[in-house]
Amino acid sequence: MEDGRFRVMLSCRDRRGIVAEVSRHLADLGATVVAAAQFTAPLSGHFFMRYEVMSDGVPLTEAGLDAGLRLGMRDLLEQQESRLVVRSASYRPRVALLASKASHCVVDVLQRWRTGELACDIVCVIANHAHIAENAGWFKVPFHHVDFRSQEKDAAFAAIDALLDDFDVDLTVLARFMQVFPDHLVLKRHGAMINIHHSFLPSFAGARPYEQAHARGVKLVGSTCHYVTPDLDEGPIIDQEVLRISHRDTPADLRRKGRLCEREALARGLRLHIEDRVFVRGNRTVIFD
Amino acid sequence: MEDGRFRVMLSCRDRRGIVAEVSRHLADLGATVVAAAQFTAPLSGHFFMRYEVMSDGVPLTEAGLDAGLRLGMRDLLEQQESRLVVRSASYRPRVALLASKASHCVVDVLQRWRTGELACDIVCVIANHAHIAENAGWFKVPFHHVDFRSQEKDAAFAAIDALLDDFDVDLTVLARFMQVFPDHLVLKRHGAMINIHHSFLPSFAGARPYEQAHARGVKLVGSTCHYVTPDLDEGPIIDQEVLRISHRDTPADLRRKGRLCEREALARGLRLHIEDRVFVRGNRTVIFD
Amino acid sequence: MEDGRFRVMLSCRDRRGIVAEVSRHLADLGATVVAAAQFTAPLSGHFFMRYEVMSDGVPLTEAGLDAGLRLGMRDLLEQQESRLVVRSASYRPRVALLASKASHCVVDVLQRWRTGELACDIVCVIANHAHIAENAGWFKVPFHHVDFRSQEKDAAFAAIDALLDDFDVDLTVLARFMQVFPDHLVLKRHGAMINIHHSFLPSFAGARPYEQAHARGVKLVGSTCHYVTPDLDEGPIIDQEVLRISHRDTPADLRRKGRLCEREALARGLRLHIEDRVFVRGNRTVIFD
Amino acid sequence: MEDGRFRVMLSCRDRRGIVAEVSRHLADLGATVVAAAQFTAPLSGHFFMRYEVMSDGVPLTEAGLDAGLRLGMRDLLEQQESRLVVRSASYRPRVALLASKASHCVVDVLQRWRTGELACDIVCVIANHAHIAENAGWFKVPFHHVDFRSQEKDAAFAAIDALLDDFDVDLTVLARFMQVFPDHLVLKRHGAMINIHHSFLPSFAGARPYEQAHARGVKLVGSTCHYVTPDLDEGPIIDQEVLRISHRDTPADLRRKGRLCEREALARGLRLHIEDRVFVRGNRTVIFD
Repeated sequence: MEDGRFRVMLSCRDRRGIVAEVSRHLADLGATVVAAAQFTAPLSGHFFMRYEVMSDGVPLTEAGLDAGLRLGMRDLLEQQESRLVVRSASYRPRVALLASKASHCVVDVLQRWRTGELACDIVCVIANHAHIAENAGWFKVPFHHVDFRSQEKDAAFAAIDALLDDFDVDLTVLARFMQVFPDHLVLKRHGAMINIHHSFLPSFAGARPYEQAHARGVKLVGSTCHYVTPDLDEGPIIDQEVLRISHRDTPADLRRKGRLCEREALARGLRLHIEDRVFVRGNRTVIFD
Repeated sequence: MEDGRFRVMLSCRDRRGIVAEVSRHLADLGATVVAAAQFTAPLSGHFFMRYEVMSDGVPLTEAGLDAGLRLGMRDLLEQQESRLVVRSASYRPRVALLASKASHCVVDVLQRWRTGELACDIVCVIANHAHIAENAGWFKVPFHHVDFRSQEKDAAFAAIDALLDDFDVDLTVLARFMQVFPDHLVLKRHGAMINIHHSFLPSFAGARPYEQAHARGVKLVGSTCHYVTPDLDEGPIIDQEVLRISHRDTPADLRRKGRLCEREALARGLRLHIEDRVFVRGNRTVIFD
Repeated sequence: MEDGRFRVMLSCRDRRGIVAEVSRHLADLGATVVAAAQFTAPLSGHFFMRYEVMSDGVPLTEAGLDAGLRLGMRDLLEQQESRLVVRSASYRPRVALLASKASHCVVDVLQRWRTGELACDIVCVIANHAHIAENAGWFKVPFHHVDFRSQEKDAAFAAIDALLDDFDVDLTVLARFMQVFPDHLVLKRHGAMINIHHSFLPSFAGARPYEQAHARGVKLVGSTCHYVTPDLDEGPIIDQEVLRISHRDTPADLRRKGRLCEREALARGLRLHIEDRVFVRGNRTVIFD
Repeated sequence: MEDGRFRVMLSCRDRRGIVAEVSRHLADLGATVVAAAQFTAPLSGHFFMRYEVMSDGVPLTEAGLDAGLRLGMRDLLEQQESRLVVRSASYRPRVALLASKASHCVVDVLQRWRTGELACDIVCVIANHAHIAENAGWFKVPFHHVDFRSQEKDAAFAAIDALLDDFDVDLTVLARFMQVFPDHLVLKRHGAMINIHHSFLPSFAGARPYEQAHARGVKLVGSTCHYVTPDLDEGPIIDQEVLRISHRDTPADLRRKGRLCEREALARGLRLHIEDRVFVRGNRTVIFD
């Protein structure tokens, strides 16, 4: 189905004629555009482009298309901040899910994956609570328990890092994982680690957001799916979701309603990332959905 | 229409038998309950009740009902934090709208009022920008321009305060009024001054929230209708509204989309207050909609 | 926790003094009201009331409270269309989930039930597709496969009916069960059978609603949780949910987005029913949430 | 600001290399692409493209760009169903608003237009109720009253048609105009007449949708902005909006909430049309927002 389809993602400083140039090179390489999205940020003048292309008859490969475009657009790509990614549409990133006590996000992601909504391979589930093993087992995904109480935090994170390396993970998903990753591991997986935060950021960053929301008396709760950066809860936002609440809702009710927001925002953000629809620049995302 | 209908709002520390007690007194006074809402806050144990009652045949007056209930529930009402309000359903509070440069909230409130959505009397529009006179004129509402550039801020606020007194205003609505009321005037109109803030509080409190939202890269913008307190942007929230945005939206687009949130949240909050559906306790609101 | 708490649901033709009467009887029986909701339909004049009460010190039982109220309100309850239900707040209805091929609603209900969101006992899962057994197994709920291909439809439904009887089911939930129940079984479980329909009714009633929605070019898809009646897709609506779509969404995308609507509307509707928050009169519902 | 910016809208049967071909011609003509959106309908294989371009240094004109593209893409454009539109970004269509008794849509569109949200010239307001004159007057827009009671319907519509011709109207907006246009006038303005229908179509087509919605007991009301076609309420949908309702909402409340949906859906649909973001094919729209 997807054979012979590719995604071409380009970001660079805007200049005249980029679209014509890319289009011409693609045509020369025998690739025809089947979907296109493009955006130039008005303030920064940065240019973002996502094309889906397919073979124009001749056989195409990811490597061939990548090399051909890099050759043709050498000048453009040599410039600072230029970035080109060519990816087969059949590419399935290897994903690890990390969880703590709550299972709703893990189960939701696994269930969507199982029913074909998420074009990835979920290769392992890691949790610091052992009972998540049962949920992973339902979907026959390897599970690893990393205990944070029987060892130092550094040792526990070293164990997680080793697992992510062993499983050759492309994307690490913090699906309500409540331990804070050390900076060096965040930086090691820069742009490849997604978190679901249980508040509508920047409101109620930090701990116990539903208690904070209840105390402030807001009329909506929310959640935020974002890339993890060393600045906790400050990374680029991919998606957010909110639900209306009332004075009748206790903190427990907010948690329950919040769980719905969390799994929706996480699933949408994950899907966007997997399909190469998210561009990050600074602290903002450009999303071609 | 509304003749012979009354609203009875009671809040007090919860204790056994309040509902039975109120119901019995109302029955004794010849009032039958046509709508009831009640809530006990689980943490504080505070009790909130709003009844709509009508005459059971004998003529009722607001004063008579009030006196009768106060006599019957003397013990309860003598307790600290007990509060009873009896109001004719035909009561129309006298409302002043305050604006600055932007007209969208003022026009929306006036238009809804004109078409019968808001059961109040809008008695004046006050603005620190003279061109709002035109909007007030459309609806034949007296307009007063209070210039903040030709006089000291204190003097300008004194002029506004005098106008609110002269017009015998029950409710002051800051419909995108961009000057910060001094504390003593806020306290003077405690619980009787509503503001629309152009962000989803507590996110982006303070100035230029749409620029803040754009810089942070959030995926939803919002607005907040709240009571004004001396702590700026910290008052009890009545209602909030949000709209989805994308990377394509400039700060100007956020302002445009935000205007929709502002007028919706303000109109809903205003309507709830006018119909005596909002109870405030601490920094939280209980809303019987 | 819930010991000594009861729900009192009353519906009847409105008349003066019902609230006072009920409140007085409850007080006489030693029950104090902790939550109250009440509504009188303006056109029909029908009255609906839901109280949550707790013991005022003396021990209360469901049977005692019921008998006491029936005795006290004999006149009212003898009138046509009067209905009183007294239920312990610890009551957990016995629920059966019926499914066909799609598992998302069954898994979502089971997962919410497992995490304590739904105060019921899910006693069995019945499906006309055998693979649903796996999902039921995850949650250790008995599963029964009723094949509609190897036997007549009447025989298959007789088997389902026998299962529902054997399991002493209080509530039958059609969680994307794609076979149409015969009228006599619908009537047998009148008011105790809930369906999730995969469209925003009354739009796109009948088969293949997502294909219908795509063909019509609507900009939102939805789903509807309703009581099952002999008139297919015409029963009283408990809740509905919608999601925005675009021209890019294929019928497969609509199905995917629709699944989110389905599980949300079903879970909310189910929760409302289980907590005795839904009153049905004619084809409309009154919901005290 | 907008000088030297143009929109290029192309729709045609999809074939290989269209994007490259258009991009090359634009580059040859000295136009650089600043925004691009493109879509190929999976079932029909129809291709839709909207580019925003600006001069690459040499002066460009709408006529020159149009002629240059038509010359270069002669083969493509000669094919059946091919359509090319080149439009200056500074183009402002001439718009007529038609209303009946309700003013909320007319006032909302005029207010948004006045505050710069709608890039069009509203050249006249026409209504079959004389009191709309006041609203038009606020914004200094010429008003014409066409009475449907003192003359035959045919004569009234002939008068409206003459006004639309006299004012050289590009777009006719039925802003809650409650008279049904005769087919020949609909066809005369095919693709240039927008209606706001006060229901979430296809639910509750026809008269009195809020009464229908109340009777059916739905939990959301909505509105639909669509192109007018001879099949009443069946035209291509541009946008829809919904709001949650409850059993407490009377038909009058539904009308009030519905008014909010109506003005939002109308304003969004109008804006999309004015900015050439809507493509129609068959009964479906492709919208590049």
